Amino acid sequence: MPEPRGRDTVVGPFARAYRLSELVDRLGGDLRGSGEVLIRQVAPLESAGPEEIAYLGSAAYQRVLSTTRAAALIVGSAAAVVAGRPCVVVPNPHAYFVRVAWLLNPQHPAQPGIHPMASVDPLAQIAHSAEISAFVTVNEGARIGERVRISSGCCIGAHVVIGSDSQLHANVTVYDRCVIGMRAVMNAGCVIGADGFGGALDDNRWLKMPHLGRVVIGDDVEVGANTTIDRGVMVDTVIEDGVKLDNQIQIGHNVRIGAHTTIAGCVGIAGSARIGAHCIIGGAAMVAGHLHLADRVQISGGTLVMNSIETPGRYTGVYPASEHRAWLRGALAVRRLGESTSGRKRPAKRRPAKTDGTS
Amino acid sequence: MPEPRGRDTVVGPFARAYRLSELVDRLGGDLRGSGEVLIRQVAPLESAGPEEIAYLGSAAYQRVLSTTRAAALIVGSAAAVVAGRPCVVVPNPHAYFVRVAWLLNPQHPAQPGIHPMASVDPLAQIAHSAEISAFVTVNEGARIGERVRISSGCCIGAHVVIGSDSQLHANVTVYDRCVIGMRAVMNAGCVIGADGFGGALDDNRWLKMPHLGRVVIGDDVEVGANTTIDRGVMVDTVIEDGVKLDNQIQIGHNVRIGAHTTIAGCVGIAGSARIGAHCIIGGAAMVAGHLHLADRVQISGGTLVMNSIETPGRYTGVYPASEHRAWLRGALAVRRLGESTSGRKRPAKRRPAKTDGTS
Amino acid sequence: MPEPRGRDTVVGPFARAYRLSELVDRLGGDLRGSGEVLIRQVAPLESAGPEEIAYLGSAAYQRVLSTTRAAALIVGSAAAVVAGRPCVVVPNPHAYFVRVAWLLNPQHPAQPGIHPMASVDPLAQIAHSAEISAFVTVNEGARIGERVRISSGCCIGAHVVIGSDSQLHANVTVYDRCVIGMRAVMNAGCVIGADGFGGALDDNRWLKMPHLGRVVIGDDVEVGANTTIDRGVMVDTVIEDGVKLDNQIQIGHNVRIGAHTTIAGCVGIAGSARIGAHCIIGGAAMVAGHLHLADRVQISGGTLVMNSIETPGRYTGVYPASEHRAWLRGALAVRRLGESTSGRKRPAKRRPAKTDGTS
Repeated sequence: MPEPRGRDTVVGPFARAYRLSELVDRLGGDLRGSGEVLIRQVAPLESAGPEEIAYLGSAAYQRVLSTTRAAALIVGSAAAVVAGRPCVVVPNPHAYFVRVAWLLNPQHPAQPGIHPMASVDPLAQIAHSAEISAFVTVNEGARIGERVRISSGCCIGAHVVIGSDSQLHANVTVYDRCVIGMRAVMNAGCVIGADGFGGALDDNRWLKMPHLGRVVIGDDVEVGANTTIDRGVMVDTVIEDGVKLDNQIQIGHNVRIGAHTTIAGCVGIAGSARIGAHCIIGGAAMVAGHLHLADRVQISGGTLVMNSIETPGRYTGVYPASEHRAWLRGALAVRRLGESTSGRKRPAKRRPAKTDGTS
Repeated sequence: MPEPRGRDTVVGPFARAYRLSELVDRLGGDLRGSGEVLIRQVAPLESAGPEEIAYLGSAAYQRVLSTTRAAALIVGSAAAVVAGRPCVVVPNPHAYFVRVAWLLNPQHPAQPGIHPMASVDPLAQIAHSAEISAFVTVNEGARIGERVRISSGCCIGAHVVIGSDSQLHANVTVYDRCVIGMRAVMNAGCVIGADGFGGALDDNRWLKMPHLGRVVIGDDVEVGANTTIDRGVMVDTVIEDGVKLDNQIQIGHNVRIGAHTTIAGCVGIAGSARIGAHCIIGGAAMVAGHLHLADRVQISGGTLVMNSIETPGRYTGVYPASEHRAWLRGALAVRRLGESTSGRKRPAKRRPAKTDGTS
Repeated sequence: MPEPRGRDTVVGPFARAYRLSELVDRLGGDLRGSGEVLIRQVAPLESAGPEEIAYLGSAAYQRVLSTTRAAALIVGSAAAVVAGRPCVVVPNPHAYFVRVAWLLNPQHPAQPGIHPMASVDPLAQIAHSAEISAFVTVNEGARIGERVRISSGCCIGAHVVIGSDSQLHANVTVYDRCVIGMRAVMNAGCVIGADGFGGALDDNRWLKMPHLGRVVIGDDVEVGANTTIDRGVMVDTVIEDGVKLDNQIQIGHNVRIGAHTTIAGCVGIAGSARIGAHCIIGGAAMVAGHLHLADRVQISGGTLVMNSIETPGRYTGVYPASEHRAWLRGALAVRRLGESTSGRKRPAKRRPAKTDGTS
């Protein structure tokens, strides 16, 4: 197979090395030791090399300190300064490390212009500084802001608005009339504004409701690869500023997600749920429809939320994994908890047995 | 961030206002009060304005009745008619409301023709009334019906058949030989007919089986954004008429889904499962392979179905969410249910502890 | 609706019939009975016709033996040979059957050349035998190997490497610098190398970390439709040789998946998890971040793995599905297990009640 690398040593075309003192001049912090040391890249403490900077995230990493070859360290307090090693003391070493990483690894700027193999409606408005790649479709009335980058295969619906400095990776679809704020990052394959699952049962058949609302996405939002966000039925689906959505998330119609909430991969938020600000929702969690989660609620991965939560805190509901035969016994006991008082017999066919989920 | 709207007030280019009496002439119902009132849009009861029509879905909405500004109401019985407000009495107010919504918000018709930046094989058959957008590929032998609309970036495999009046949103992929019926809606990014997960273990390695079957989709089917439906191994995967699949659903090979079944987002149906007609499967539920679900079975969201269900009714299996520390205690108790009689010690390393599902 | 077929009888353009003796000459095995019988297709035992070959997978199929019309059978031992029916005796009948299926249903070879409506950077290197379809983008520095097939709508990032004989179906996105080995199959809509969910909390806001690593995929890997694999932060995300990933899987940053592991649909593997070789992970299972799974661990479908597993074997953790009212009683009992000793009252609002997961 191709050779993976323990750590990527490619230095991008825009990268240059900085003296440690230069980093501190730009990003702040309290320099201890020599500022002359040259920094080319960020790296984890345990694998950092002689021209790399690392950070000391927690006491657990203390044991690595004696062996690290890092050129410099970012630490959280004067007490953590390592003798004989250049250090920068800052209140939040991890956040500082991320800022250094961006300085050393700047993004490609937009290459202004519309590719000759793009399809742009004459009634669309594209900023001169925007980059429209090959095989991009921009439909009538769409407005694309300054320095926006739209990669190959994206389809921008009619009357869509995309704020300045946003980036759409390849094969993103934005349905008609949706709105994306500034500095958004939309990863490949995400779908913004498809119709949700709304309608009425009529004579046992599903009669679909037209979706008249939009998706409105705030500033500084990131949407993961293949994530889907449905448009509202008669109101807008709203993703507020600073929300981070990981990959393969499904957001139903009419949902509102509060500012700076982060949601990990594979999560589903059913229609009309309202999620507060600064919430953290773990991977593969699910929130049922029409619920309300207060600000600063944390949902553990894999948890199904079936009722509103009005008190901040952490909530969990996951069946613990066991060796298979122990689980079989436990699952039967759990089922009996519900059936012992019911007067119904347990149907023999529904004993837990096959669980591989494969065919 | 961009300004969301509580309710979208854009009136599309095809919309026009109707007198209430015109609506009743077209859609039926028993008109009570003045038919002269002008209706421009549908709206929820609580936010409807003076030229909008709302419906009274359940008794729970009675409290809103005194304050609604709706121009007219759709109600379920003569007893529900509101004095002094034009009303339409119908057996199913929600379904009637949806029909009014379609009348007031008609879809754009197909713009017949093949975009010059589409790639259509000379051996494909495209109806003259069909709309083929830019960057669409139609391979040899494909047959595209009357008034079909195919948006940018779709790839239609060889010998695919798409029935009349169907719509494919952007970036849909249909593999070779699959069949889609009439009036289907395929949302952006869905993938029809990829090979499923079939094969044999040979010397501890996976030997993939060629998938010789197709996906055959009936009439009036809707498939959600980024949903995937695998082709069959030696039979067809079949989605019967009127089935509604939400976003991010995975349907394995050889599966058959009965007519008018609705499946919410993030559901997985493993290979060779047979789902009955008129079933309702809640979000993030999973059905293991080779099972059979009878007609009119309802599966609650998040439930894993590991055995066939032959009796109509509602089935559930979800660990209840709790405040995290209460869950920890409960999960240990649940694990002990399985281990107390096993004679094995619980490995210390597998106590439920980290559950955030994030990195 | 369109007519599904119980079994597809289309014979592809490359197929031809073989005498049974020819099959044995090419693929080995011990021929019993006449080798003159003509074989056109593989088929399941219960529906095989007179020019088709089937295999006897297990004793459970014995009852079908008396009625099958199959022209020939593949069996696992001399004892299983059926009198009066041509048989091939081999150690692994299922694997042999798969090999026959490939012989009878060969894949289309690549049609060498670059479509005039593709967009290939002059600094990309494309093997002469590779097939680049319409609306494919290949960015600078990418290297595409011999006989690689890239279907419509794929976007190949800068400096990507794709090994010989690999196939990318439509609308696949590969981000910059990722590496795909030989004979890989990437199904439609999959996204390789998007940034993962890494960053730091800074003043209650999420500060994203640039992702400097790549995705490195080995040889003989298959990736399902709409599956997403994130690039590493400061190391590579690695998918080793022979790994099979089904549809709609999410692989987080820095993950390493050992050789020949198979993962069913809808699974999530959170960041920095390390999965061993020859593991089998059932559909919709989830593995939390930073865990380690030993070689040959099997995870049942729907199970959440929250702790490392160092011992091979099968592990399960799924709440058993029940008739809904029985589940309600059981779920309350399970919750009480955690709350009985906690001294806290159970908030009335969080009783399990609504679980349909729909809006």
